[in-house]
Amino acid sequence: MSIFEELESEVRSYSRGWPVVFDRAQGSRIYSEDGKPYLDFFAGAGALNYGHNNPHLKKALIDYLQRDGVTHALDMFTVAKRDFLETLQEKILAPRELEYKVVFPGPGGANAVEAALKLARKVTGKESVINFTNAFHGMTLGALSVTGNSMKRGGAGVPLVHATPMPYDKYFDGAMPDFMYFEKLLEDSGSGLNEPAAVIVEGVQGEGGINAARLEWLRGLDDLCKRHDILLILDDVQMGCGRTGPFFSFEDAGISPDIVCLSKSIGGYGLPMALTLIKPELDVWEPGEHNGTFRGISPAFVTATEALRVYWSDDELEKSTKAKGERIASTFKDLVESYPEANLVAKGRGLARGLEFGSGELAGAVCKAAFERGLLMETSGPDGEVMKLLPPLTLTDDELSEGLSIISESVAAVLK
Amino acid sequence: MSIFEELESEVRSYSRGWPVVFDRAQGSRIYSEDGKPYLDFFAGAGALNYGHNNPHLKKALIDYLQRDGVTHALDMFTVAKRDFLETLQEKILAPRELEYKVVFPGPGGANAVEAALKLARKVTGKESVINFTNAFHGMTLGALSVTGNSMKRGGAGVPLVHATPMPYDKYFDGAMPDFMYFEKLLEDSGSGLNEPAAVIVEGVQGEGGINAARLEWLRGLDDLCKRHDILLILDDVQMGCGRTGPFFSFEDAGISPDIVCLSKSIGGYGLPMALTLIKPELDVWEPGEHNGTFRGISPAFVTATEALRVYWSDDELEKSTKAKGERIASTFKDLVESYPEANLVAKGRGLARGLEFGSGELAGAVCKAAFERGLLMETSGPDGEVMKLLPPLTLTDDELSEGLSIISESVAAVLK
Amino acid sequence: MSIFEELESEVRSYSRGWPVVFDRAQGSRIYSEDGKPYLDFFAGAGALNYGHNNPHLKKALIDYLQRDGVTHALDMFTVAKRDFLETLQEKILAPRELEYKVVFPGPGGANAVEAALKLARKVTGKESVINFTNAFHGMTLGALSVTGNSMKRGGAGVPLVHATPMPYDKYFDGAMPDFMYFEKLLEDSGSGLNEPAAVIVEGVQGEGGINAARLEWLRGLDDLCKRHDILLILDDVQMGCGRTGPFFSFEDAGISPDIVCLSKSIGGYGLPMALTLIKPELDVWEPGEHNGTFRGISPAFVTATEALRVYWSDDELEKSTKAKGERIASTFKDLVESYPEANLVAKGRGLARGLEFGSGELAGAVCKAAFERGLLMETSGPDGEVMKLLPPLTLTDDELSEGLSIISESVAAVLK
Amino acid sequence: MSIFEELESEVRSYSRGWPVVFDRAQGSRIYSEDGKPYLDFFAGAGALNYGHNNPHLKKALIDYLQRDGVTHALDMFTVAKRDFLETLQEKILAPRELEYKVVFPGPGGANAVEAALKLARKVTGKESVINFTNAFHGMTLGALSVTGNSMKRGGAGVPLVHATPMPYDKYFDGAMPDFMYFEKLLEDSGSGLNEPAAVIVEGVQGEGGINAARLEWLRGLDDLCKRHDILLILDDVQMGCGRTGPFFSFEDAGISPDIVCLSKSIGGYGLPMALTLIKPELDVWEPGEHNGTFRGISPAFVTATEALRVYWSDDELEKSTKAKGERIASTFKDLVESYPEANLVAKGRGLARGLEFGSGELAGAVCKAAFERGLLMETSGPDGEVMKLLPPLTLTDDELSEGLSIISESVAAVLK
Repeated sequence: MSIFEELESEVRSYSRGWPVVFDRAQGSRIYSEDGKPYLDFFAGAGALNYGHNNPHLKKALIDYLQRDGVTHALDMFTVAKRDFLETLQEKILAPRELEYKVVFPGPGGANAVEAALKLARKVTGKESVINFTNAFHGMTLGALSVTGNSMKRGGAGVPLVHATPMPYDKYFDGAMPDFMYFEKLLEDSGSGLNEPAAVIVEGVQGEGGINAARLEWLRGLDDLCKRHDILLILDDVQMGCGRTGPFFSFEDAGISPDIVCLSKSIGGYGLPMALTLIKPELDVWEPGEHNGTFRGISPAFVTATEALRVYWSDDELEKSTKAKGERIASTFKDLVESYPEANLVAKGRGLARGLEFGSGELAGAVCKAAFERGLLMETSGPDGEVMKLLPPLTLTDDELSEGLSIISESVAAVLK
Repeated sequence: MSIFEELESEVRSYSRGWPVVFDRAQGSRIYSEDGKPYLDFFAGAGALNYGHNNPHLKKALIDYLQRDGVTHALDMFTVAKRDFLETLQEKILAPRELEYKVVFPGPGGANAVEAALKLARKVTGKESVINFTNAFHGMTLGALSVTGNSMKRGGAGVPLVHATPMPYDKYFDGAMPDFMYFEKLLEDSGSGLNEPAAVIVEGVQGEGGINAARLEWLRGLDDLCKRHDILLILDDVQMGCGRTGPFFSFEDAGISPDIVCLSKSIGGYGLPMALTLIKPELDVWEPGEHNGTFRGISPAFVTATEALRVYWSDDELEKSTKAKGERIASTFKDLVESYPEANLVAKGRGLARGLEFGSGELAGAVCKAAFERGLLMETSGPDGEVMKLLPPLTLTDDELSEGLSIISESVAAVLK
Repeated sequence: MSIFEELESEVRSYSRGWPVVFDRAQGSRIYSEDGKPYLDFFAGAGALNYGHNNPHLKKALIDYLQRDGVTHALDMFTVAKRDFLETLQEKILAPRELEYKVVFPGPGGANAVEAALKLARKVTGKESVINFTNAFHGMTLGALSVTGNSMKRGGAGVPLVHATPMPYDKYFDGAMPDFMYFEKLLEDSGSGLNEPAAVIVEGVQGEGGINAARLEWLRGLDDLCKRHDILLILDDVQMGCGRTGPFFSFEDAGISPDIVCLSKSIGGYGLPMALTLIKPELDVWEPGEHNGTFRGISPAFVTATEALRVYWSDDELEKSTKAKGERIASTFKDLVESYPEANLVAKGRGLARGLEFGSGELAGAVCKAAFERGLLMETSGPDGEVMKLLPPLTLTDDELSEGLSIISESVAAVLK
Repeated sequence: MSIFEELESEVRSYSRGWPVVFDRAQGSRIYSEDGKPYLDFFAGAGALNYGHNNPHLKKALIDYLQRDGVTHALDMFTVAKRDFLETLQEKILAPRELEYKVVFPGPGGANAVEAALKLARKVTGKESVINFTNAFHGMTLGALSVTGNSMKRGGAGVPLVHATPMPYDKYFDGAMPDFMYFEKLLEDSGSGLNEPAAVIVEGVQGEGGINAARLEWLRGLDDLCKRHDILLILDDVQMGCGRTGPFFSFEDAGISPDIVCLSKSIGGYGLPMALTLIKPELDVWEPGEHNGTFRGISPAFVTATEALRVYWSDDELEKSTKAKGERIASTFKDLVESYPEANLVAKGRGLARGLEFGSGELAGAVCKAAFERGLLMETSGPDGEVMKLLPPLTLTDDELSEGLSIISESVAAVLK
């Protein structure tokens, strides 16, 4: 029995689908300890938008470590944090005319969500929050209460209250006008809906099945929130940092949410880091009212800063992400047409792409077939029925071709 | 206006007491950007037990990064995780005859606590948890609900329920037998106390004011939990990894809690990492029922492993921690005696030490005086009335002497 | 200042619309202390289906009191309770082939609802309950949590959780297929809807605006609950005891809910009494697990028994209720047509009837005009926009004519 | 099988101990249908302080019914309510210099408690409430959450939150200074106790085991509440209306709580009625914010008014209650001394008296023996270990002698 089986909890999951021991990684490839390469279209569930051990970031990181830059600093002032804040302002916020203050909420995406929910409730004096069907926001108690997945919710062991789910875009395939139900409940003082402090939404739902909200739906949601004085929290933990093309998944909708959650790829190198961006007028915290040990991990600031400089000084990455996304869409279109009886559905935006199968078994079988062919992909959606592609944004055209070939072969192997 | 004031949220706190910009750090010293050294008796709030940028760990870390070891791997199998698990088993668990399985709950201490609470509730089917006065367990909703500080609790914005506080050891200075109230409530079916799933306790309360529970009190609590079928969760996030002398703060009490939370110094280098250790029979999770993006940060595994190898292959560190702790105790005894009117109280165990002043103002003034003399310390306790020392366990005797001198001078400057 | 203004809390409401002091009452008439008669189309908000001081019931009640029958008996066995149970079985349950056990939950409708919710949760082990838009189920904390009205919910002072509102019948005027949203959420394991223990519904919503659910909608709901193993709680507190024609409001739908709540007119004479009827297999209470002081008020049992004997030994009352209801419907139809610009909407079933105006101001003005003309009616609906008629079922045809004339005049006076 | 067994839920409890069918009752006696008289020292669990079918009240009630006085009137103005309010003011509030406004919260004691809790939370903006060990306040969700009994709490089916129990007077037999724990938690901002809106307390705990708080304890609690701006809710549902001697159980302590709950004997004749008395400055309800169908049951107002006139125009009842209480105390003293090995404990005040046995089995056996001898008494306390006497305050000296003889015999029969 391996040490993993002996000592690690049964809660582990990814290792069940990919039963090899990984050792090294570079760019779009990750290698098992026996040297076998895998093309990684999973990319740390979106935490590795710039690829594994990106050489630009690696250099900056090792330089920083070599010179004994401060590693751990809570919310003290550091040179590394100053560089990061200045670069965020210069490369991201200012060009987009976004005015936000930055909360360092803790090391992970769930911390960004917890801080957002706490602040929204503090500011409004209300407890209730609206979330969406098939939302995923994290595993800590506050974040879990706005997450949809029933298995994960069941793990809480206490009733998860204070959140009411509303239908995400296209949940009824157009059978119901956007926000009809939501707005009626808000306007009807007898509806029984607790007046919400905030709405929390993903621009594209990743775990929920690569559901890409239409831009007009996001705009509609933003309008509705403004009309009803509800704070809009945009959870861009997985879809931010360029995953859908622009830096923020909501940019093309032309909205500026009240609160934005970032994590995963913001650190750039896969090191834990998270941000909660808040409109300046919401900055009503007491000093220390929200705190935590891992809010000033300078190595992550260093790689985050370098990533912003290298990849967000122009719009090349955005363009390339969109173009590569279109290539995937095109391949998916072919697959949909090639297997008319399978009723495949192509989904997504930018380099967040999904192919929906009729069942979790089928999607799982395709991912397994791909793994055997050297490609890592996971499934998502409530029943795991969506094959989910989140390749590094930095993958080459050849790598993309290679991956798409494996996918086509794997689909053929399963559906033939 | 600096970029910090312009862009960072008002929630920042440490930077208010130490208004300089830090850049480099080595061992027990951290340097501001103008080169001024500070002796660091704060040590990342307990996250830097092995000092800043410890050379042993630094070497292992840079080697790993240089060779493109996998950085980010969720809960996939990796060589780095295998090394860590084997070393944990060999250096820590096996020698202490502790049988635990390891959950990687997410990057920070709050994740370790959230996972512990979820699991305890799942296993027992009960919701209620007993916590203690002046407990600190974290800022996410589940962890916050078992934390005592009212300002931090107020930040939740929703009522924090499911927890009932009981008096920590010495809360009534012996006026009440240990556990008299708690046990009476448990035994009286009419008491109104919801039957608890678990008790969560710190071996020594850090944020709560460096309150060191007597070992017999911890044993008494363990007994009580066993008698009443309540799971015992020991939150060793701040006091584990040798802070009080032995690796776990509860070792000398001779108990083996059902669940142990570790974080802060477990990664060794200040990188985010956390563990929830659970008795094997509690390992009832479904695969993926608790998950998260930052559960497999290999650089932290690498430094964690190296730290265990370097510092826990023998009992030297434990002995030195205890000895240095006694030196602090001795100096504190002198201070208590030198200022009889100030009613100072010396507290703590190992290298978790506190000196209680009559008010938060006094303790704060002493810390400020120390900062001006080049020493970092923070206050703790409900009113910030305790000067808190958490120096690196690796500090030299000279550094300790230097720090104690500054402390004595600072106390004198304030109380004179 | 009157003693009412001096001593009674500002929470009083009906006395604000009808600022006279009532003294006597008989049948459909209630008299102020100066002898002015009022035709009562309010009838104790549905508690006086058999009219004020009904002579049949009055005789039985006074006989019982004269002979010193036990008045107060908690859940002891009494002759009065035996008579009631036998009569309930003979006149109501057996003829309808309904198999229920009887819980005496306390004196009022809210107690019937609280007991229903407690039992549903105990039986299923789930906490969540589905309620409907504009539902009204009572003012105690459990009942209030499934009530829609936001002003009343706000009075709770704690977040009302554990309930999720679904659209009641016709909430979207057919724009959305029945139960489409509800069933999709139930079937989608990622929807974020907590699995419900029960659905609680009124056959016709009274306080919510006299919304009469179509019988096929009720059947659809019953089907859905069966398909998803959800208990169906039918709150017939206001609409039971013949208000809509048959004894139970759900009879014509051909369903038999798992739990039925009765109160208001079940006692017959306006004395507090309530029942929770439960399917035998749900009778899993421990003895005394739900209790209360006022569960065996024999005078109410006596009048309840007499009411069942006098009015429910044949179907005359049911037929007359339906016929009188049609008369109201016909008058309302005329009013709707006479004031096309007012967009009046006629609503209801049996002798639960409503006329919806464009606003609460208009409906209130009509009720005020009617009061001045000697007719009592209240408004309902989220904005008080519905003029609500709940006359005694025993009113004569002449009284009905008189009332309808006053209504027509009053509408004319307001809308002219 | 009787109709009771066939149709009534298993939740019934009193009928299990007294398996006869009662029919008539007068004064202190209740008769089974075969004519057997029982001396009633249970008295409707405190709802029949003036005895069964008290002739003064009976006459007033039948007169009122005969003349068709309004029976049911919600919160409309009625002559019956005016008489009641004037009499309450004249006989009870004014002589005691108590300034309260009157809320009619619904028909039962739980409604009085629910209204009190709602109002306390609305006024203070806080959710948390302090209750006491072995408290009993009712079975609806809000009232149940502040009730101690674990079996009854378990019936809720949802976690009961927002309340924290504190030790009632003498809970530790003096081992702990009064309120030491409570006040320390309030004063310590790190205690983890949610800041309470209110304290809810019984002057004497009935269901909890006839625990009579010392008057200085009640004064101490009142002081503590004033010092910490916490509202004091005195639940006098069972112990009010003269049960302990004075009209209110708290009178002799010289305090005037912010909110007082009355029910049970306030109606006088066993008819459902309840009051929530509130300090005028707390009367911040919106009209209709708390409502209910059974808040204006005029027959109960009529008997309540008559009871106040007959029994509270002078201090005779108070004196007689205290004197009779002393007789019971004296008999109990003898019993305690006669059975030294049984460690009996005599408890109570006025005509709320208890004799504590070593176990619920013993106390139950004594009650059974008494029943066989023609005396009704129930047990109380967390394990039913207390024989509880709540005879009508109007019982004669002979009846008291008779009852005490039966008790002595029954104790002898069990303990001999």
